[in-house]
Amino acid sequence: MLNTKAQVSKATVRRIPLYYRAVQQLQQQGVSRIRSDRLSELIHIPSATIRRDFSSFGELGKSGYGYSVGTLVDEFGKLLDVHTKEEMLLVGVGGLGAALMENNFRRNPDLNITMAFDADPAKVGTTVAGIPVYDFKTLRQHLTPAIHTAILAVPSTSQTAVVTALEAAGVNAILTFAPQPVVCGPDTTIRYIDLTSELQSLLFVAHQKGAHDRVH
Amino acid sequence: MLNTKAQVSKATVRRIPLYYRAVQQLQQQGVSRIRSDRLSELIHIPSATIRRDFSSFGELGKSGYGYSVGTLVDEFGKLLDVHTKEEMLLVGVGGLGAALMENNFRRNPDLNITMAFDADPAKVGTTVAGIPVYDFKTLRQHLTPAIHTAILAVPSTSQTAVVTALEAAGVNAILTFAPQPVVCGPDTTIRYIDLTSELQSLLFVAHQKGAHDRVH
Repeated sequence: MLNTKAQVSKATVRRIPLYYRAVQQLQQQGVSRIRSDRLSELIHIPSATIRRDFSSFGELGKSGYGYSVGTLVDEFGKLLDVHTKEEMLLVGVGGLGAALMENNFRRNPDLNITMAFDADPAKVGTTVAGIPVYDFKTLRQHLTPAIHTAILAVPSTSQTAVVTALEAAGVNAILTFAPQPVVCGPDTTIRYIDLTSELQSLLFVAHQKGAHDRVH
Repeated sequence: MLNTKAQVSKATVRRIPLYYRAVQQLQQQGVSRIRSDRLSELIHIPSATIRRDFSSFGELGKSGYGYSVGTLVDEFGKLLDVHTKEEMLLVGVGGLGAALMENNFRRNPDLNITMAFDADPAKVGTTVAGIPVYDFKTLRQHLTPAIHTAILAVPSTSQTAVVTALEAAGVNAILTFAPQPVVCGPDTTIRYIDLTSELQSLLFVAHQKGAHDRVH
C-alpha cells in the first residue's frame, strides 16, 4: 500500500489526515466495520469520493460489506507516520515554543527539534531541554542541509518576515501557531494551528448542541 | 444572519470553521470573489453543498457571479466569534498548560481561563500568570456555575479519568491536546488538537509535493 503513494492525487492526500482522525474515533467507540455512506455522514465527504480514494490504496474492504476500521486505522497511520529521521528547527522561544521544545513530539522518536531561534538577546545563547537557541539573524550559519522543516511560535506580526527568511534558506515545510495566513511560494507547505479558532469552533458546536437540546 | 443559527443543520455548522479558514486564505491572496465550484476544488466539499450551506445564512452572494470573499470572511468570523464572556478551566499545568495560561487566548478578550487544576502537590497552591492552580481532586469545590468549558493539557494516560470527572461536574465542552480519542456522553463536545499528527500530516503533504516536483 505504501508503494502506491506516488499515484495518489494531491486532493486525496489532503483527505488522509481527516480519514485517519475519523476511523480512530470509530475504533475507540468499538465500531469494527464502516460503510462509505456512513463515513460520508460523519466527515461530510461524498461517499463516491471516499470509495474512489480508498480504492487507490488497494484492497481496504469490500463494497457493500464495508471497510474494516482496524485495517483503515493501521493503513492510514502507516501512511502518515514519518519513519525517516526528521530534524526540525523552531522559531520563537516564548512559553509555547519552550513547551514544544520540552515535549519535542516525543510520541514519534523520529521527529526532533534540534535547534531554535529567537530575536531576544536574553534568550540567544541559552538552551531549552538541551536544544540550543541561536539568533534568528544567524539562521543560515546554523542551518544544516538536513533541515527543511520549521515550527513557528512567533507573534503574528513577525510571521511574514520569518517565513520569507526560512523559504530563502531552503526550509519548505512550516507548522505555525500564528493564525494570520502568509503568502508563500509554490514549493512551500504551511500548516496552521490556530488555537483561538479551534476553541471558538468548539464553543460554537457546543452551544449549537445546547440550543438543539433545548429546542427538541 | 446570526439570528438564523438555530435553523442551520449540525452538518452545516461543522463545516463553518472549514469555510472560514478557506475564505481567510483567499482574502490574504487578494481574491475578492469566489464561485462555489472553485471553492469546492479548494476544500473538497461538493459545490451543491456549499451553495445550500451558504443560502441558509441569507444573502451572501449571487449564483453564477460568485460570493464576495470579504463578506464571507466577515460573516463566518462573526458566526464563530464568541461575544459572550466565556470562563474556562485548564487541567494539566505542565509546559504546554502554563504557556496556554500565559497566552490565555488573548486574541479574543472574551475567552478567559480563570482557574487551573493539577495533581502535582508542587503545583497546587501556586499561580501561573495570575491564575490559581488547585488540586484536581477539589474540582467540584472550585468550579463555578459559569464554567462549562475545559482545556486539557494532560498526559494521554490521564485523559479518560479527567474527562469523566469533568463531565460529572457539568463541564461539556473540552479542547484537548492528548490525541487518544475518549468516549464521552452525547451532551459533551470534545475537540482534539493532535500536534504530532498535525506535524506528520504537514510532512506527508510536503514530501508528496517534493515527490511530484521530482516526477514532473
